[in-house]
Amino acid sequence: MSLETIPIHAVPPAAGLSGNAPPLLHELHAMLRRLLDTGASSSIDLSALPLTPADLDWLRDKLGSGEIAVTLQANGESTLDETQCSGIWWVTHRNPQGAVVAQFIEVAFVPELLQAQPQDVEIGLDYLDSIRADL
Amino acid sequence: MSLETIPIHAVPPAAGLSGNAPPLLHELHAMLRRLLDTGASSSIDLSALPLTPADLDWLRDKLGSGEIAVTLQANGESTLDETQCSGIWWVTHRNPQGAVVAQFIEVAFVPELLQAQPQDVEIGLDYLDSIRADL
Repeated sequence: MSLETIPIHAVPPAAGLSGNAPPLLHELHAMLRRLLDTGASSSIDLSALPLTPADLDWLRDKLGSGEIAVTLQANGESTLDETQCSGIWWVTHRNPQGAVVAQFIEVAFVPELLQAQPQDVEIGLDYLDSIRADL
Repeated sequence: MSLETIPIHAVPPAAGLSGNAPPLLHELHAMLRRLLDTGASSSIDLSALPLTPADLDWLRDKLGSGEIAVTLQANGESTLDETQCSGIWWVTHRNPQGAVVAQFIEVAFVPELLQAQPQDVEIGLDYLDSIRADL
Protein backbone atom coordinates (compact mmCIF):
# COMPACT_ATOMS: atom_id res chain seq x y z
CA MET A 1 0.00 0.00 0.00
CA SER A 2 1.52 3.33 -0.99
CA LEU A 3 1.22 6.37 1.23
CA GLU A 4 -1.07 8.00 -1.31
CA THR A 5 -3.74 5.35 -0.74
CA ILE A 6 -3.89 5.69 3.07
CA PRO A 7 -7.28 7.28 3.69
CA ILE A 8 -6.96 10.44 5.73
CA HIS A 9 -10.05 12.14 7.13
CA ALA A 10 -9.83 15.52 8.75
CA VAL A 11 -11.98 15.51 11.90
CA PRO A 12 -14.36 18.43 11.57
CA PRO A 13 -15.39 20.36 14.67
CA ALA A 14 -18.70 18.96 15.89
CA ALA A 15 -21.58 20.66 14.11
CA GLY A 16 -22.89 23.75 15.79
CA LEU A 17 -20.39 23.95 18.64
CA SER A 18 -19.11 27.48 19.20
CA GLY A 19 -16.29 26.60 21.58
CA ASN A 20 -17.90 28.69 24.32
CA ALA A 21 -19.11 25.74 26.41
CA PRO A 22 -15.87 24.11 27.65
CA PRO A 23 -14.72 27.21 29.59
CA LEU A 24 -17.97 26.99 31.56
CA LEU A 25 -16.79 23.67 33.04
CA HIS A 26 -13.81 25.50 34.53
CA GLU A 27 -16.08 28.21 35.88
CA LEU A 28 -18.41 25.57 37.38
CA HIS A 29 -15.42 23.96 39.06
CA ALA A 30 -14.56 27.25 40.77
CA MET A 31 -18.21 27.79 41.74
CA LEU A 32 -18.47 24.29 43.22
CA ARG A 33 -15.21 24.80 45.12
CA ARG A 34 -16.60 28.06 46.53
CA LEU A 35 -19.85 26.33 47.55
CA LEU A 36 -17.87 23.76 49.52
CA ASP A 37 -15.50 26.27 51.08
CA THR A 38 -17.91 29.06 51.96
CA GLY A 39 -21.44 27.71 51.43
CA ALA A 40 -22.07 30.44 48.85
CA SER A 41 -24.48 29.51 46.05
CA SER A 42 -24.14 30.94 42.54
CA SER A 43 -25.56 30.44 39.08
CA ILE A 44 -24.85 30.87 35.38
CA ASP A 45 -27.58 32.41 33.23
CA LEU A 46 -27.22 30.34 30.07
CA SER A 47 -29.62 32.58 28.16
CA ALA A 48 -27.23 35.50 28.61
CA LEU A 49 -24.28 33.71 26.98
CA PRO A 50 -23.48 33.18 23.29
CA LEU A 51 -24.25 29.45 23.36
CA THR A 52 -25.75 27.46 20.50
CA PRO A 53 -28.31 24.67 21.04
CA ALA A 54 -25.44 22.25 20.30
CA ASP A 55 -23.35 23.90 23.04
CA LEU A 56 -26.18 23.42 25.52
CA ASP A 57 -26.61 19.78 24.52
CA TRP A 58 -22.87 19.21 24.87
CA LEU A 59 -22.79 20.86 28.29
CA ARG A 60 -25.81 18.96 29.57
CA ASP A 61 -24.39 15.70 28.28
CA LYS A 62 -21.03 16.36 29.98
CA LEU A 63 -22.67 17.18 33.32
CA GLY A 64 -24.80 14.03 33.15
CA SER A 65 -27.91 13.16 35.14
CA GLY A 66 -28.27 12.84 38.89
CA GLU A 67 -30.86 11.13 41.09
CA ILE A 68 -33.16 14.10 41.69
CA ALA A 69 -35.66 15.59 39.22
CA VAL A 70 -37.98 18.39 40.29
CA THR A 71 -40.97 19.96 38.58
CA LEU A 72 -42.43 23.21 39.83
CA GLN A 73 -45.77 24.46 38.51
CA ALA A 74 -46.03 28.22 38.80
CA ASN A 75 -47.20 30.20 35.79
CA GLY A 76 -45.59 27.62 33.50
CA GLU A 77 -43.52 24.57 34.39
CA SER A 78 -39.98 24.76 35.70
CA THR A 79 -37.68 21.77 35.95
CA LEU A 80 -34.73 21.60 38.32
CA ASP A 81 -32.64 18.54 37.60
CA GLU A 82 -29.66 17.42 39.60
CA THR A 83 -26.68 16.66 37.38
CA GLN A 84 -24.21 13.85 37.96
CA CYS A 85 -22.13 16.48 39.79
CA SER A 86 -23.87 16.73 43.14
CA GLY A 87 -24.43 20.43 43.89
CA ILE A 88 -24.86 21.39 40.21
CA TRP A 89 -28.49 21.74 39.05
CA TRP A 90 -29.84 22.33 35.53
CA VAL A 91 -32.79 24.70 35.77
CA THR A 92 -35.24 25.37 32.92
CA HIS A 93 -38.19 27.76 33.13
CA ARG A 94 -41.07 27.49 30.66
CA ASN A 95 -44.01 29.81 30.06
CA PRO A 96 -47.61 28.54 30.25
CA GLN A 97 -47.37 27.66 26.54
CA GLY A 98 -44.39 25.39 27.23
CA ALA A 99 -41.70 27.52 25.55
CA VAL A 100 -38.34 27.80 27.33
CA VAL A 101 -37.99 31.34 28.68
CA ALA A 102 -34.83 30.96 30.81
CA GLN A 103 -32.16 28.39 31.50
CA PHE A 104 -29.66 28.38 34.35
CA ILE A 105 -27.00 26.20 35.87
CA GLU A 106 -27.33 26.63 39.63
CA VAL A 107 -24.55 25.66 42.02
CA ALA A 108 -26.07 25.10 45.45
CA PHE A 109 -26.66 22.45 48.07
CA VAL A 110 -30.33 22.89 47.22
CA PRO A 111 -31.84 25.23 44.59
CA GLU A 112 -33.26 28.44 46.02
CA LEU A 113 -36.70 27.80 44.50
CA LEU A 114 -37.16 24.53 46.42
CA GLN A 115 -36.91 26.15 49.83
CA ALA A 116 -40.21 27.10 51.41
CA GLN A 117 -40.22 30.76 52.39
CA PRO A 118 -41.24 31.63 55.98
CA GLN A 119 -44.04 33.90 54.77
CA ASP A 120 -45.46 31.01 52.71
CA VAL A 121 -45.21 28.68 55.70
CA GLU A 122 -47.22 31.24 57.70
CA ILE A 123 -49.90 31.01 55.00
CA GLY A 124 -49.67 27.20 55.28
CA LEU A 125 -50.35 27.50 59.02
CA ASP A 126 -53.47 29.57 58.32
CA TYR A 127 -54.60 27.01 55.74
CA LEU A 128 -54.13 24.23 58.31
CA ASP A 129 -56.19 26.28 60.78
CA SER A 130 -59.01 26.56 58.25
CA ILE A 131 -58.98 22.79 57.64
CA ARG A 132 -59.11 22.11 61.40
CA ALA A 133 -61.96 24.60 61.86
CA ASP A 134 -64.00 22.67 59.29
CA LEU A 135 -63.60 19.29 61.00
CA MET B 1 -97.10 14.40 55.56
CA SER B 2 -96.90 12.65 58.91
CA LEU B 3 -93.70 12.59 60.89
CA GLU B 4 -93.40 8.87 60.24
CA THR B 5 -92.93 9.45 56.52
CA ILE B 6 -90.10 12.00 56.79
CA PRO B 7 -87.12 10.10 55.46
CA ILE B 8 -84.28 10.11 57.99
CA HIS B 9 -80.88 8.80 57.01
CA ALA B 10 -78.18 8.31 59.60
CA VAL B 11 -74.88 9.58 58.18
CA PRO B 12 -72.52 6.65 58.41
CA PRO B 13 -68.84 7.30 59.17
CA ALA B 14 -66.96 7.40 55.86
CA ALA B 15 -65.97 3.92 54.83
CA GLY B 16 -62.64 2.79 56.15
CA LEU B 17 -61.84 5.85 58.27
CA SER B 18 -60.47 4.94 61.68
CA GLY B 19 -60.66 8.41 63.22
CA ASN B 20 -56.88 8.43 63.72
CA ALA B 21 -56.13 10.90 60.93
CA PRO B 22 -57.71 14.17 62.17
CA PRO B 23 -55.48 14.39 65.29
CA LEU B 24 -52.49 14.37 62.94
CA LEU B 25 -53.60 17.74 61.56
CA HIS B 26 -53.23 19.20 65.05
CA GLU B 27 -49.81 17.62 65.40
CA LEU B 28 -48.76 18.99 62.00
CA HIS B 29 -49.88 22.45 63.11
CA ALA B 30 -47.57 22.25 66.14
CA MET B 31 -44.70 20.94 63.97
CA LEU B 32 -45.16 23.74 61.43
CA ARG B 33 -45.27 26.33 64.24
CA ARG B 34 -42.01 24.88 65.62
CA LEU B 35 -40.39 25.01 62.16
CA LEU B 36 -41.22 28.70 61.89
CA ASP B 37 -40.18 29.55 65.45
CA THR B 38 -36.98 27.50 65.73
CA GLY B 39 -36.14 26.22 62.23
CA ALA B 40 -36.38 22.64 63.54
CA SER B 41 -37.56 20.05 60.99
CA SER B 42 -39.56 17.00 62.03
CA SER B 43 -41.53 14.18 60.44
CA ILE B 44 -44.33 11.70 61.02
CA ASP B 45 -43.73 8.09 60.01
CA LEU B 46 -47.13 7.17 58.62
CA SER B 47 -46.20 3.49 58.34
CA ALA B 48 -45.75 3.36 62.13
CA LEU B 49 -49.31 4.57 62.85
CA PRO B 50 -52.62 2.65 62.82
CA LEU B 51 -53.88 4.36 59.66
CA THR B 52 -56.07 2.74 57.03
CA PRO B 53 -55.64 3.41 53.30
CA ALA B 54 -58.81 5.55 53.59
CA ASP B 55 -57.18 7.56 56.42
CA LEU B 56 -54.15 8.23 54.22
CA ASP B 57 -56.35 9.29 51.29
CA TRP B 58 -58.33 11.60 53.60
CA LEU B 59 -55.15 13.14 55.02
CA ARG B 60 -53.56 13.63 51.63
CA ASP B 61 -56.74 15.17 50.28
CA LYS B 62 -56.98 17.57 53.24
CA LEU B 63 -53.35 18.69 52.85
CA GLY B 64 -53.81 19.28 49.13
CA SER B 65 -51.18 19.67 46.44
CA GLY B 66 -48.46 22.29 46.19
CA GLU B 67 -46.35 23.55 43.31
CA ILE B 68 -43.34 21.28 43.76
CA ALA B 69 -43.08 17.58 42.87
CA VAL B 70 -39.79 15.73 43.24
CA THR B 71 -38.72 12.30 42.12
CA LEU B 72 -35.54 10.74 43.44
CA GLN B 73 -34.14 7.58 41.84
CA ALA B 74 -32.03 5.62 44.30
CA ASN B 75 -32.64 1.89 44.65
CA GLY B 76 -36.32 2.46 43.87
CA GLU B 77 -38.20 5.68 43.27
CA SER B 78 -39.04 8.14 46.00
CA THR B 79 -41.46 11.01 45.55
CA LEU B 80 -41.41 14.15 47.67
CA ASP B 81 -44.45 16.27 46.97
CA GLU B 82 -45.10 19.66 48.45
CA THR B 83 -48.60 19.93 49.90
CA GLN B 84 -50.78 23.00 49.73
CA CYS B 85 -49.33 23.85 53.16
CA SER B 86 -45.92 25.23 52.30
CA GLY B 87 -43.36 23.49 54.54
CA ILE B 88 -45.31 20.20 54.67
CA TRP B 89 -44.10 17.49 52.27
CA TRP B 90 -45.61 14.10 51.50
CA VAL B 91 -42.78 11.60 51.07
CA THR B 92 -43.22 8.09 49.63
CA HIS B 93 -40.41 5.58 49.20
CA ARG B 94 -40.78 2.65 46.81
CA ASN B 95 -38.59 -0.41 46.31
CA PRO B 96 -37.15 -1.27 42.87
CA GLN B 97 -40.33 -3.28 42.17
CA GLY B 98 -42.46 -0.19 42.76
CA ALA B 99 -44.08 -1.23 46.06
CA VAL B 100 -44.43 1.43 48.75
CA VAL B 101 -42.01 0.63 51.57
CA ALA B 102 -42.32 3.78 53.68
CA GLN B 103 -44.42 6.91 53.82
CA PHE B 104 -43.71 10.09 55.79
CA ILE B 105 -45.04 13.57 56.23
CA GLU B 106 -42.00 15.81 56.54
CA VAL B 107 -42.18 19.30 58.01
CA ALA B 108 -39.21 21.28 56.75
CA PHE B 109 -38.27 24.28 54.63
CA VAL B 110 -36.74 21.72 52.29
CA PRO B 111 -36.74 17.92 52.67
CA GLU B 112 -33.48 16.51 54.01
CA LEU B 113 -33.05 14.18 51.00
CA LEU B 114 -32.97 17.08 48.52
CA GLN B 115 -29.91 18.69 50.05
CA ALA B 116 -26.62 17.76 48.45
CA GLN B 117 -24.19 16.46 51.07
CA PRO B 118 -20.70 18.03 51.18
CA GLN B 119 -19.01 14.64 50.69
CA ASP B 120 -21.10 14.10 47.52
CA VAL B 121 -20.21 17.58 46.27
CA GLU B 122 -16.52 16.64 46.76
CA ILE B 123 -17.14 13.62 44.50
CA GLY B 124 -18.85 15.98 42.04
CA LEU B 125 -15.70 18.13 41.99
CA ASP B 126 -13.59 15.06 41.17
CA TYR B 127 -16.03 14.12 38.42
CA LEU B 128 -15.75 17.63 36.97
CA ASP B 129 -11.96 17.29 37.09
CA SER B 130 -12.16 14.06 35.11
CA ILE B 131 -14.38 15.69 32.46
CA ARG B 132 -11.96 18.62 32.15
CA ALA B 133 -8.96 16.28 31.85
CA ASP B 134 -10.63 14.55 28.88
CA LEU B 135 -11.22 17.77 26.92
